[in-house]
Amino acid sequence: MARVLTPRAEDFPRWYQDLIAKAKLADNGPVRGTMVIRPAGYAIWERMQAEMDARIKAAGAENAYFPLFIPESYLKREAEHVEGFSPELAVVTHGGGKQLAEPVVVRPTSETVIGEFMAKWIDSYRDLPLLLNQWANVVRWELRPRIFLRTSEFLWQEGHTAHATREDARAYARRILHEAYEDLMVNVLGIPVVVGLKTARERFAGATATYTCEGMMGDGKALQLGTSHELGQNFAKAFDISYSSAEGGREHAWTTSWGTSTRMLGGLIMCHGDDNGLRVPPKLAPVQAYVMIVKDGEGVGEAARKLHDALRDAGVRVALDDRTDTAFGRRAVDAELRGYPVRVEVGPRDLAAGNAVVVRRTDGSKAPTPVADVVGAVLAALEADQQALHDQALEFRRSRTVEVSTLAEAIEASATGWARVPWSAVGVEGEAEANAQGVTVRCLVRADGSVPDSEDEPDLVAILARAY
Amino acid sequence: MARVLTPRAEDFPRWYQDLIAKAKLADNGPVRGTMVIRPAGYAIWERMQAEMDARIKAAGAENAYFPLFIPESYLKREAEHVEGFSPELAVVTHGGGKQLAEPVVVRPTSETVIGEFMAKWIDSYRDLPLLLNQWANVVRWELRPRIFLRTSEFLWQEGHTAHATREDARAYARRILHEAYEDLMVNVLGIPVVVGLKTARERFAGATATYTCEGMMGDGKALQLGTSHELGQNFAKAFDISYSSAEGGREHAWTTSWGTSTRMLGGLIMCHGDDNGLRVPPKLAPVQAYVMIVKDGEGVGEAARKLHDALRDAGVRVALDDRTDTAFGRRAVDAELRGYPVRVEVGPRDLAAGNAVVVRRTDGSKAPTPVADVVGAVLAALEADQQALHDQALEFRRSRTVEVSTLAEAIEASATGWARVPWSAVGVEGEAEANAQGVTVRCLVRADGSVPDSEDEPDLVAILARAY
Repeated sequence: MARVLTPRAEDFPRWYQDLIAKAKLADNGPVRGTMVIRPAGYAIWERMQAEMDARIKAAGAENAYFPLFIPESYLKREAEHVEGFSPELAVVTHGGGKQLAEPVVVRPTSETVIGEFMAKWIDSYRDLPLLLNQWANVVRWELRPRIFLRTSEFLWQEGHTAHATREDARAYARRILHEAYEDLMVNVLGIPVVVGLKTARERFAGATATYTCEGMMGDGKALQLGTSHELGQNFAKAFDISYSSAEGGREHAWTTSWGTSTRMLGGLIMCHGDDNGLRVPPKLAPVQAYVMIVKDGEGVGEAARKLHDALRDAGVRVALDDRTDTAFGRRAVDAELRGYPVRVEVGPRDLAAGNAVVVRRTDGSKAPTPVADVVGAVLAALEADQQALHDQALEFRRSRTVEVSTLAEAIEASATGWARVPWSAVGVEGEAEANAQGVTVRCLVRADGSVPDSEDEPDLVAILARAY
Repeated sequence: MARVLTPRAEDFPRWYQDLIAKAKLADNGPVRGTMVIRPAGYAIWERMQAEMDARIKAAGAENAYFPLFIPESYLKREAEHVEGFSPELAVVTHGGGKQLAEPVVVRPTSETVIGEFMAKWIDSYRDLPLLLNQWANVVRWELRPRIFLRTSEFLWQEGHTAHATREDARAYARRILHEAYEDLMVNVLGIPVVVGLKTARERFAGATATYTCEGMMGDGKALQLGTSHELGQNFAKAFDISYSSAEGGREHAWTTSWGTSTRMLGGLIMCHGDDNGLRVPPKLAPVQAYVMIVKDGEGVGEAARKLHDALRDAGVRVALDDRTDTAFGRRAVDAELRGYPVRVEVGPRDLAAGNAVVVRRTDGSKAPTPVADVVGAVLAALEADQQALHDQALEFRRSRTVEVSTLAEAIEASATGWARVPWSAVGVEGEAEANAQGVTVRCLVRADGSVPDSEDEPDLVAILARAY
């Protein structure tokens, strides 16, 4: 097969850009830093959304929608918060043909406006917990944009909850972390994320604890795929989110927030993509089986359509490619680029022998298969390849992760992958030193892999890496 | 039952605002003209979206996402288009802490940016038709906002398609009009819309034909619930959307656009709401059956939970209200306000006789029902009430529509409802005269009710009304 993309080993960032363009996933928008998500990319995002939305709802949160425009004054209420965002804001100064009396900000997050309304809606302990989620676009001006990873506008979900106690808030932030985020990433996206606690330095502005899901990309770097924050009573105090308790007093609530975004599309590409294009895990793939007519011939069209219908009836998301006026080779290259998990190629020669060819994107295997056995073979391939992609990524992560005992070794190892090093060997000063060399502490985990409550726990392991 | 809302007959606009506030559907946002869609309102919007999205996909269109920010220069390319929008634009002048070299506009529609990308993506006739849809927020600065009906920011879907011929474009604009819009509105929202052609005066800026779905609200006014436009080659020429034909020449494409928005929520409220609150058609309702524990008593909680589970297992969207620490009367008023189609009330007295009470929101009927028969009774009520709400609205529209033969009579009749009058008795001058008195031609239909191709057809009927 002719070279379609810059090979990953040659230039990983270039490969990433090539893939996005040639698989028609997205384009750069006309305003710097914005993106156009094309149908092939958006269809994957829609399935991520649907899977995530179901998990968020299962955790009891309800969707709502808050306005795009936020008064500038709102962002100034929580000092740490505004410091975190001010250099990134887009400001609307004119509306309806006139200069506005007070400029409004295009939301970089809805934290402040949701805080304002939580304060209005919460009166008594009976109103708690209040569990809200929103699917929306947000804007953070980007000087060095990269499609899906850092764009001036991106799509995301942001959850915001208020609870009566610190324990409830903590339990909910962790429930979303594990039951929604980790579960989606591992079991649908097939990305074996490490789940841990951020250090104070890496914590979200205003949070008392930030939990994260970190994935290893194909170049050994880390990508933060989702975070969940405990905000303590910081936001509740800034926005006066309070409730009358069962005992009759007035208490500030404890809040959380958590988000995942179109950045997950970038993670999917960089975790599973290969030199021929994207590979999409079957559970996520908008098209799981791609039935292709190789070229016209006796009974070929009919056989292909029957296979298409049989796969559809078996619950497979299937598409039929009968564009025989386009060269088969070109169509096959496109199918590889798009990452359809299974192709079913139907052509005159194989069909004469009673076969269609089942091609698996994960390992490139091509199996001539009796037509009557195709549905079963496709179902088996989809099942196996969901796991295979995850396991390949896990194996790759293991091969690129080293256990070291000093900061110097950890920084050195970060050139090609991740380093696991005792947090006691890094500490706040060591973290600053690593940062100066472009290496960050991605998260802290316990020796048994579980998520710590605090960075002060003994025997924590720090994961150091370069990151997107 | 105590008066909860301003009665419709007393003050319809006030009733509308009251209902939205007390049913917790939405709030005004902090920036004038914006809205917060609360979970109870958003859940209905999500179901409208899902039903619409399925219909749009069935018509072959694919979802994509285009940027929020559009260069000012794009809007100037199509003169008629910019005239239609310029007084409504929100303009971002600062981004990332600096004044921008070129201000960017917050999209009032994505027509122009999608046109720009269609021009890039379409090369040959093989690329046609190109059928795109987008779910997004848009901004049109509103000086007289009203929640759901006219807000500075609203949520919508906008479809944009390009075709090789005028006939293909027309057929597609009409396919969306009937198979997506009319079907959703009539069969899911239960709103008996009239579907027709807009006059030249009411047409979308730049369109060659605008088709519309018009519903009658509870005060006899009309609401435009969705439009589908043929844009001829106007946009294709402005944005150079062209293709090489099978014969080898270069031709401009023919384009369409079509949209529906959160305005449908306003239409739903004003079509079906009564003096006790919202009434939601069962197919649309996020909660179809609301099982309420009237008060605690022997076996009550268990019976309620069993009914909840049995309804859920029968495929009913069901919620359980066991908040017996809140007065039953107050909870029942809330349930009326929210418009749950069926309530199942479980209390000690009825349960002692083996019954639960099935309350239908549509007609207020209360039927003590043997517990074993409740699931069947609920399913029957949901089926019947979907139709009943539609039929009531149709009957109301008929009662408020008059057939007249002169413009003067039509204008007079518009004070309380709709007038059907020969278009030949109105014409362009009569339309201007009606407009001066606050009455508009909502649409033109043929005598048999079908949608005309042009306002020049003979024997057309004009529908005149006051409108939102």
